[in-house]
Amino acid sequence: MSSETDDQPPKSFPTARESRLLFSSPLFEKGWVWLAGAGPGDPSLLTLQLYDALGKADFIVYDFLVSEAILALVPSSVERLYAGKRGGKPSPSQRDITETLITSARAGRRVLRLKGGDPFLFARGGEEALALANAGIPFRVLPGISAAPAALAYAGIPLTHRDYNSSITFLTGHDLTGALPRKIRWNMLAGSAEVLVFYMVMKHIATIVRKLLAAGRDPQEPVAFIRNATLPDQTIAVGVLKDAVDTAKRFSPPVVFVVGSVVGLHEQLAWWSPPSEFPRSRGKS
Amino acid sequence: MSSETDDQPPKSFPTARESRLLFSSPLFEKGWVWLAGAGPGDPSLLTLQLYDALGKADFIVYDFLVSEAILALVPSSVERLYAGKRGGKPSPSQRDITETLITSARAGRRVLRLKGGDPFLFARGGEEALALANAGIPFRVLPGISAAPAALAYAGIPLTHRDYNSSITFLTGHDLTGALPRKIRWNMLAGSAEVLVFYMVMKHIATIVRKLLAAGRDPQEPVAFIRNATLPDQTIAVGVLKDAVDTAKRFSPPVVFVVGSVVGLHEQLAWWSPPSEFPRSRGKS
Repeated sequence: MSSETDDQPPKSFPTARESRLLFSSPLFEKGWVWLAGAGPGDPSLLTLQLYDALGKADFIVYDFLVSEAILALVPSSVERLYAGKRGGKPSPSQRDITETLITSARAGRRVLRLKGGDPFLFARGGEEALALANAGIPFRVLPGISAAPAALAYAGIPLTHRDYNSSITFLTGHDLTGALPRKIRWNMLAGSAEVLVFYMVMKHIATIVRKLLAAGRDPQEPVAFIRNATLPDQTIAVGVLKDAVDTAKRFSPPVVFVVGSVVGLHEQLAWWSPPSEFPRSRGKS
Repeated sequence: MSSETDDQPPKSFPTARESRLLFSSPLFEKGWVWLAGAGPGDPSLLTLQLYDALGKADFIVYDFLVSEAILALVPSSVERLYAGKRGGKPSPSQRDITETLITSARAGRRVLRLKGGDPFLFARGGEEALALANAGIPFRVLPGISAAPAALAYAGIPLTHRDYNSSITFLTGHDLTGALPRKIRWNMLAGSAEVLVFYMVMKHIATIVRKLLAAGRDPQEPVAFIRNATLPDQTIAVGVLKDAVDTAKRFSPPVVFVVGSVVGLHEQLAWWSPPSEFPRSRGKS
């Protein structure tokens, strides 16, 4: 996948000096916090502005969903702090994380807060931005490609297609307490949302599928699970809503779950194949 | 914004050879079409994989919403075709565009189909991918940052915040015939969608606001219009739903329209300011 051919001469990314002539990569000033989205996992989906920032930060605070391949791009001289949960150990509290961001910025550091996906979509970036604003810390938001649109792109499932839908709804399957989100009005949602795309769906998948069916969604409606979207071990399973709970058993997080007629286009539009050195697998890895 | 300081040494983007060691930028093979999202307009929001592709393509077919600043990054040796509408002249039909993609790929060219935002979200990428699949042309989808999430990031409006919403709905304000989308069930949508984000809203803004109010949305619900998101002349107006039609008069497309309580966070989280050489302006430019 990554080799150059003779008739395709290597193209260099611009140097910082060249890129300055072409476009304005923002200046990372001391004492600022940048809330950045690292995208779904494939490092080639980083934005140029974030790629640039990885080399300019003094201190990087990163979450669980930031891939190893992306962390490998951070110069070894940059201090890093892992702020996620792993192996059943408690994760640092949100309060501890924002305190760290504030203290580091006040000490004059360039702090890069690195989240998977997009910082403002199911990633608590809004909460951290509010804490920074309240503390008087200047900040910038660097959007990233969120897991759900990336997963659909790599699964060959259009988010919208004029013959199928003129809207799409993104939801989380549980709130931060672990409960099903309380404010979702499932009957009206199921009756109006043409395509639903869930983050963090696995915990309550049985309840969610039951509520959608009870609200009148077609049991034969196409659904897809996409795990580790954009990574070499990406796996996809396509089925129908009534069997979704069974299908889910083959998956563990992080998973994106799509419900809607556009999933039917996957069969024609599946373009992705795993890198040749990577064994094709399905389900849990 | 773009100047380097002494204590912030210029950092080079990696050369293709270096980047190959770090991550796999996909190989652009002859006879392939890449359907790519160029993001909202700011070139520093391009993905690394698309930036790389700009220099490897033989032929670029681009849309209206691809910014001049991004086109400036395309080497002059690469042939380009403009496939958008401008100045009231008719745009090439979708059929003509897909025919061009197919013919060029069959001639062995590396064809980069460049769209604003994300190719699979209100950008007809799904239709073009289907035409390619039906013609047996191999293709790849390169996701980009869509206008709506970028606009909210630059406006300091979280797409989700746990105290406000656990879902977000993206819609188009009109279909390709120019009519209000027929399948939208406005009453149920208005009753269940916590935050609504509209693309292409200006044509039917009065009808849309009327339908939302008639379905019971609070007339005092915060709304925002964001025009030319991420570009130096980005403009934002925040108000309430009942006054949205009046506010809209100060805007012309391309505009993102947001309805929902998260807009209330803009006042605290607005971080963006125009580049210093660019006069601050509001409304139509």
